[in-house]
Amino acid sequence: MISQNLVKDLTALLGAENVFSSEADRQCYAYDSAVLPQCIPSLVLRPTKPEQIGECVRQCYEAGLAITVRGAGSNLSGGTVPDNTDSVVILTNGLQKILEINSEDLYAVVEPGVVTAQFAAAVAQKNLFYPPDPGSMAVSTLAGNIAENAGGLRGLKYGVTKDYVMGLEFFDYEGNLVKTGSRTVKCVTGFNLAGLMVASEGTMGIISKAILKLVPPPRASRAITAEFSDIQHASEAVAAMIAAHVVPCTLELLDQATLKYVEDDQHIGLPVNAAAMLLIEVDGHPGQVADEAAIVEDVLKKCHATAIHIPENEEEKNKLWAARRNALPALARARPTCVLEDATVPRSQIPAMIRSLNEIKAKYNVQMGTFGHAGDGNLHPTILCDKRDKEEFARVEAAVDEIFDVALKLGGTLSGEHGIGTAKAKWMEKETSRGTILFSQRMRKAIDPKGLFNGRKIIGV
Amino acid sequence: MISQNLVKDLTALLGAENVFSSEADRQCYAYDSAVLPQCIPSLVLRPTKPEQIGECVRQCYEAGLAITVRGAGSNLSGGTVPDNTDSVVILTNGLQKILEINSEDLYAVVEPGVVTAQFAAAVAQKNLFYPPDPGSMAVSTLAGNIAENAGGLRGLKYGVTKDYVMGLEFFDYEGNLVKTGSRTVKCVTGFNLAGLMVASEGTMGIISKAILKLVPPPRASRAITAEFSDIQHASEAVAAMIAAHVVPCTLELLDQATLKYVEDDQHIGLPVNAAAMLLIEVDGHPGQVADEAAIVEDVLKKCHATAIHIPENEEEKNKLWAARRNALPALARARPTCVLEDATVPRSQIPAMIRSLNEIKAKYNVQMGTFGHAGDGNLHPTILCDKRDKEEFARVEAAVDEIFDVALKLGGTLSGEHGIGTAKAKWMEKETSRGTILFSQRMRKAIDPKGLFNGRKIIGV
Repeated sequence: MISQNLVKDLTALLGAENVFSSEADRQCYAYDSAVLPQCIPSLVLRPTKPEQIGECVRQCYEAGLAITVRGAGSNLSGGTVPDNTDSVVILTNGLQKILEINSEDLYAVVEPGVVTAQFAAAVAQKNLFYPPDPGSMAVSTLAGNIAENAGGLRGLKYGVTKDYVMGLEFFDYEGNLVKTGSRTVKCVTGFNLAGLMVASEGTMGIISKAILKLVPPPRASRAITAEFSDIQHASEAVAAMIAAHVVPCTLELLDQATLKYVEDDQHIGLPVNAAAMLLIEVDGHPGQVADEAAIVEDVLKKCHATAIHIPENEEEKNKLWAARRNALPALARARPTCVLEDATVPRSQIPAMIRSLNEIKAKYNVQMGTFGHAGDGNLHPTILCDKRDKEEFARVEAAVDEIFDVALKLGGTLSGEHGIGTAKAKWMEKETSRGTILFSQRMRKAIDPKGLFNGRKIIGV
Repeated sequence: MISQNLVKDLTALLGAENVFSSEADRQCYAYDSAVLPQCIPSLVLRPTKPEQIGECVRQCYEAGLAITVRGAGSNLSGGTVPDNTDSVVILTNGLQKILEINSEDLYAVVEPGVVTAQFAAAVAQKNLFYPPDPGSMAVSTLAGNIAENAGGLRGLKYGVTKDYVMGLEFFDYEGNLVKTGSRTVKCVTGFNLAGLMVASEGTMGIISKAILKLVPPPRASRAITAEFSDIQHASEAVAAMIAAHVVPCTLELLDQATLKYVEDDQHIGLPVNAAAMLLIEVDGHPGQVADEAAIVEDVLKKCHATAIHIPENEEEKNKLWAARRNALPALARARPTCVLEDATVPRSQIPAMIRSLNEIKAKYNVQMGTFGHAGDGNLHPTILCDKRDKEEFARVEAAVDEIFDVALKLGGTLSGEHGIGTAKAKWMEKETSRGTILFSQRMRKAIDPKGLFNGRKIIGV
């Protein structure tokens, strides 16, 4: 139970317009984008100044309230679902200022709630480039991306969010400000706490500021699409490109099921009769782009592509890329429940993974579409079902278990970019070791002695 | 005091040839490459199997002995100096196997004691590239590089060691094996403990295995050198290149003092009358190299370079690059004591930093040469002195204090790549915050409850 005194104090701190306690308001923050039970928080707070975050945390922690920080709630593993009904949600959307874009030193300083796509656009306006592009970037926030170490389509060539975090400020459970990293390219002053905060899913403290790395934009790019009559051929083309030392900035796969769902939803003329489609983009110096595009076409032909197409203009390319970005929403609309996984394997294992996914689909008789970042081994097998149908959902859960088993057997990992949250906590030890869980628990206990920072997430309470 | 029973047990575990207890042997592990008091350990152990590391740690920790892990001892901030005379040094040079180099998935798996240069050469033989190239790479070890987050000449374009650590295995104080990261490009399974281990200077556990990222090698490269009659012009050229969106793979500066010391030592025909020299290398696609080299030459001319030179062949280039690599040893030979700093600033602040360094040199009347990774703002002002001359050394210490002050005022950091160790622990709070120290201490206490893992390092006991 939240005391009325605390609500009064927080209202004095933030202003009544930034403290939400009505049931209708609180209901909006009971879920995120994962298929998990909802949990309505007791109170929702929206700090509008960085230092208010520290004060909110200090007061709520002292009062023993569970604290979940929330950007856009686009999380796919339950990281933004409150832990219990006695909890507080701290929103970052009151802190959306881009504080600095430094063209000389190639970095930016931002508040936590800046929307990823808006940031990328502001950076592009200065003729610079912020590569991380998670599927949810139109709504996701930068601190959310950091807390989840969000990936995206460009991960293969440009890395993921982790690779762009130069420094952070965050508040610990006592409301103390912690600073880590720097505006400099190199910094080894103290522990790499910025590295620790990345992917920590709101369990270590609340981010109030980030210094992000920028790079010069590529001078040229070329998009290529390819169709295949056999998805194995597509997956072999993916492995062959990397082996030929071409690292495309985008290398995405859509299987036939996904193509059909997206086409039904969007009517953009996708090749629904193809077994699979690859979307490829190479970028860099114009000479490099020409050379790499030639190698890619050669590989596609050798791997039996039935059609190779070069979009004529930016508009045509954007339409196709939008198809990929809309894969998840299109699939999600087909059935009441959409279980999206992101088990990831070393990229040379993509052909084996695709084979196993097809076997699992048949074995458990589930409706599955597979798409994703084939270039970095990060596929998104997506099972469509109805959670209320217990018999069907049991088959879905068994299929998911087997997907994880196969990924680990192929030298892969449970999650490439969606996080562990509550959704995958139970598989953690299988991939790592008992020692890893113990080490993580010890560390966490020291940083969050009462277990109030998203306490159920990653390794469980 | 180490009990004879423990020595007997460890000898049974490792073999007598891997347990060193004579004074002559132990004396060899009392120091590293930093200018700091020596401390002779009680015992030195050399595990030859990864699992022996865990057993050594468990037994020594239980016995309450301080533990310092040591690669090549090339550390520049005291990270490999034992904490007290009741301590054990664990060597990694019994674990030097490269376990896998995977060309398809672009990673390698290594034991901790593999020598950096030998690894880079083995990778190059497979037509792949491991970019991190710390100055000490001829002797330094990969786990040592990870523990220190070693940088190097290629940091500006290719990043530092941190950017190449995909996964780690290490042993905690109870001898449990902790696994973190993966062979996959993307992995968010659990806390980013690999990120935490990077730059942790032996305070969190002992690394037994690493998965390192590899990249395709650049297809072409071109080296350019430039001389200047005013070091300000050289520093302005550095800032202008980055502003022109050229990111060279090497962008090194040597000031006149450094040029003279290196020439005296090596006799390779360096321009000792120049106020400063820049060593530049661009790499990538041949077309990109040609374009970028043209931009670089243009910038150099605009910034008043008095001579611009393109080495005629690889041999001539290597001679010049060796001059840079030999800057530290050449300076170190000139006087009994060599205090090497690596305060780092955002690269646009290099001109201001150079100005301040010259003022500090005059103000404290110290003998100083400055060289370093100008492209990433990571200069190495190096003071030559005699520590036994108390009056002189007091001036040196005052000069170092002021160097740190200036770096922080310019938005920089205490250490770009050499680490904090014991050398810079006292300045930590000034750069970060009280909250940062508290957070780090709490975390550390949980991970090392007895404070035996390099206990004096980074934040002190």
